[in-house]
Order: sequence, then C-alpha cells, then structure tokens
Amino acid sequence: MKLSIIGLGLLGGSLALDLRKRGFADEIFGYDLSPVSQGYAKQVGLIDEECTMDEAISKGDIVVIAVPVSAAIKILPDVLNKINDNQIVIDICSTKGTICERVKGHSRRRRYVACHPMAGTENSGPWSAISGMFDGKALIICDSEDSDEDAVKTARRMFEVLNMNTMFFNSFNHDVHVAYVSHLSHVCSFALAQTVLDKERNEKNIFSLASGGFASTVRLAKSNAEMWVPIFDNNKDNVLDVLGTYIEKLQNFKQLLVNDDIKGMMDYVNNANRIRKVLK
Amino acid sequence: MKLSIIGLGLLGGSLALDLRKRGFADEIFGYDLSPVSQGYAKQVGLIDEECTMDEAISKGDIVVIAVPVSAAIKILPDVLNKINDNQIVIDICSTKGTICERVKGHSRRRRYVACHPMAGTENSGPWSAISGMFDGKALIICDSEDSDEDAVKTARRMFEVLNMNTMFFNSFNHDVHVAYVSHLSHVCSFALAQTVLDKERNEKNIFSLASGGFASTVRLAKSNAEMWVPIFDNNKDNVLDVLGTYIEKLQNFKQLLVNDDIKGMMDYVNNANRIRKVLK
Repeated sequence: MKLSIIGLGLLGGSLALDLRKRGFADEIFGYDLSPVSQGYAKQVGLIDEECTMDEAISKGDIVVIAVPVSAAIKILPDVLNKINDNQIVIDICSTKGTICERVKGHSRRRRYVACHPMAGTENSGPWSAISGMFDGKALIICDSEDSDEDAVKTARRMFEVLNMNTMFFNSFNHDVHVAYVSHLSHVCSFALAQTVLDKERNEKNIFSLASGGFASTVRLAKSNAEMWVPIFDNNKDNVLDVLGTYIEKLQNFKQLLVNDDIKGMMDYVNNANRIRKVLK
Repeated sequence: MKLSIIGLGLLGGSLALDLRKRGFADEIFGYDLSPVSQGYAKQVGLIDEECTMDEAISKGDIVVIAVPVSAAIKILPDVLNKINDNQIVIDICSTKGTICERVKGHSRRRRYVACHPMAGTENSGPWSAISGMFDGKALIICDSEDSDEDAVKTARRMFEVLNMNTMFFNSFNHDVHVAYVSHLSHVCSFALAQTVLDKERNEKNIFSLASGGFASTVRLAKSNAEMWVPIFDNNKDNVLDVLGTYIEKLQNFKQLLVNDDIKGMMDYVNNANRIRKVLK
C-alpha cells in the first residue's frame, strides 16, 4: 500500500512510524508546510520521499490529512478534486462537524473517510513521533454512511494495524462528546498553567513545591496552540456550552467554601468521586 | 526507634511500610478511629500493635499524626500535653498555618515538628499503602525555629530514610504556595468530574470516548472527601483567592472564543505553554 501523509507532526509522524513497521505501508510520501519538519521526517526515515502537496495527493493509495483542522478544512475539497476514483482520503482531526459539512455534496465525498484517532501526547512535531501511540485507543469514524464501503473498510484496516478500537458516531454527536471528554480538559489545563505562572511572577520558586497531582492536571497545558486553537474554534458552540457549565461548578464550590459549608463540600467531593466507577 | 502512628490511612500506612522496611522503625504502634482500618493494618503487618490513642501517644519515641487536618488540630494540643520531654510529635497534614497557630505558646510546642511530605495518590485507606511513595518527593518543614533542634533533626532523619528532599518554609508562605500547586488542581478536577458526570446522565456512553488527556486531568477527582474538605477549609483564604483567579482566566478564554479571537487564543495557549520550562 502506498501512503501519502500531508502534515508531518506528532500524529502524522507516529502514523508513518507504525504503519511502516507493521507492514501496512510499503512506501510513504510526505509533505509538510515546514521544510524543517519535512526534512527531518525524511532524514530519520519516517517518510521515503519528500513531495509537494500535489505530488503527495497523486501518489498515495491512501492520502492522510494530518494538519490542524482549520487547514484541513481549507485543503480537503481541493484534495478530493485531485484524486482518482480508487484513492481514499482520510483526515484525522479532532473535530468532525465543520469538516464533514464542508465537503457535503462534493462529487468525491464518498472517497473521504472522516476519522478521529483519540491518541496523542502533549508534545508536537515529527521529532515527538513515537511507536505504539495509537495502540488500544479509540478510533471514531464519523458519518460513515457518506463514504464508500470499500473506503471505510480500508480506513478501518489501517487503524486496526495500529490496534485501535473502532467506533461509529455521527459528526454532530462526536463533537458534543469530545467537548466534554477532551476539549474541556485542555482549557482547564491552559487556564491552570496561566494562573500559577502569573503568581510565579511575584513569588519565585513556587514550582519547587509542585506535586505529582499538579503535574498531572497541568500536563495538557503543554499542548500546541496551532493544533488546539482551531479545534476550539471549530467546536465553538459545544466548548462554550461545556465551559459555561464548568465555570458554574467552580462557582458552586467557591460559594460552599465562602459559607464554610462543610457538608456541602463533602457532598460535592463525594459526588465527583463517582468518576471512579467510570474511569479506572 | 519506636514509632506511633495516629491515623492509618494511605499516608500513615505507606509511612509504616517503608520506615520498617528500611530499618528506621523497630516497633510500630498504631491507632485509627476506624476499627476496620486499624485491624487491617495489624493483619497485614503495617503495625505491630493495635493501641488506644493514649497508648499510642505514650509508646512512641516519635508520634506521627496522620489524620485529616481538622482532626489533627483538635488532638495536637492534647497529644503535646501527654508526651514527655524526650518524645517528638510530627504531623503530616497538607496545610500548616492553622495547626501551627493552634499550638503557638503551648508549653511543649518545641517537641512538635510541622511537616508536609508532598506525596500521595488519589487512593485512600491502609489498603492503598504503597512502598516508595515518598521517594524523591519534597518534604516541607514549617516554622522550624519554633521546634527543638534535636526534634527537627530526628524528623529530617525519618524523612531522609524515605528519600525525601527537605525544604524549610514558614507556615504562612507554605499555605499560599500549596494553594497554587496542589489545592487548586484538586478543585479543578472535582469540578471537571462533576461537569462530565452531569452530562452523562442524559448522554450515555460519553466515557467511551474518554482520552488519556481527560484521565490525566480528572485523576485527582478520585481523592478522598474526608481528607480534602478540611484542607480547603483550613486554607480557605488562599484557596478562594487562587480559585477566583482561575475562574477569571477561564472567563478570559471564554470571551476570546465568543469573539472568535484566534490571535488572542493563540497568545493564551502560547502563554500557558511556558509551563514547559518549569515542569518537565
């Protein structure tokens, strides 16, 4: 199988690494807007050949779009214009509503499979690519009824090689769900980092006391702006909705503490503890 | 060395485990309000002898108080009343201002060393005790000038056996710092868990999509109410202060998103990314 990857970051790079290692891809063509990322990917053997975008589009049996969602939305119609009827296009962005909407009615819509492999780390760039990153994680295919059966089948096969567990959602529900279980976590972490970093301006060495708990909660604040801002923007309504609820919950807690309402705080924490049942 | 531990939870249990294993404690006496916890600690050999509180106070060369801070504040004066001049009392609570204030001027204040070993997990109870939990973590000793030199020396030696790195703070600064780098993280997580659990009432299977990022951010929401509510209550002013700043930061982000201010959001995330420099 010939694989083209547009966007050689953490995800594109890790995909290349394991799809070659596990025998799915015989030849990998890569393009990245950044010559440094592209050159690095060739240098360390993530890809076999550096391409222009058009060459990448024409050469792959599968063309994977692994760029921030705002860029993916811009290039996807053009990519579909340029492929032939046997090629398949897969995007791996974290929001699916706006991108599926963008190519609704496109004459080659059925050659496109909207995917969201729920894997990653807080690092970015092809130098952060790691083997095994997708193993055991969830792959969501959205609006699969709008794609050709053989295209979905090939996409599934590719992600099964990465040991992912496939689920099917419509793109609307997908975006609601990920606002809760992924996007909100990132906003929490970014805001937490800001809060503590601001304080540090006046009080040096505040981080000498940073505990494992803090590290765990703030880890996602290391995530890349170029990837995440387009996600928030493309899932604006859901993120605003869930963020509003989150701020309310914090204000509830604040009021309990202001009132010295010990029982209220106990109930609040016990209620939150129910997360144990759903998350090991 | 004879060691008495009042409070046989995660911390008391883990302390017992490694202080025996590493040869610091020859004999360990234990008391817990819960007969189940106390019986379990004896059963699995965390302690050598089950005691009443008074027996525990009289038998140990070192008496460690490992109960929630609200309970520790209540019992500490009485514990100091009952020890002799050679014994040492150490508490290991997460807030230090109110407890140090409580025994200011006590005739045996100098036999007490106010400690905060910054270690733990989201689990609780002696059945969660683990070896190595304290290794490499920070130990903060507060207001050490109010303790006898030999008492501080012995406390340091005990925590050095646990491979902890000792730092000295006054109790006021300690409480400000931990509000930022520990207490706030817990409030964030509790509120995040509540937000997503509420949503789940209406939308089943929302957790099928839970990512590693979510798990990391929400982990602390599994933490125990009996321990944490007294911490918030005893560090009320600092927690309210930092929580207010955090809510403001979230509202800032919300406004940027409402305004589709891409550049503003990029700056926000890039600013948060500075956490990389201080936290590996």
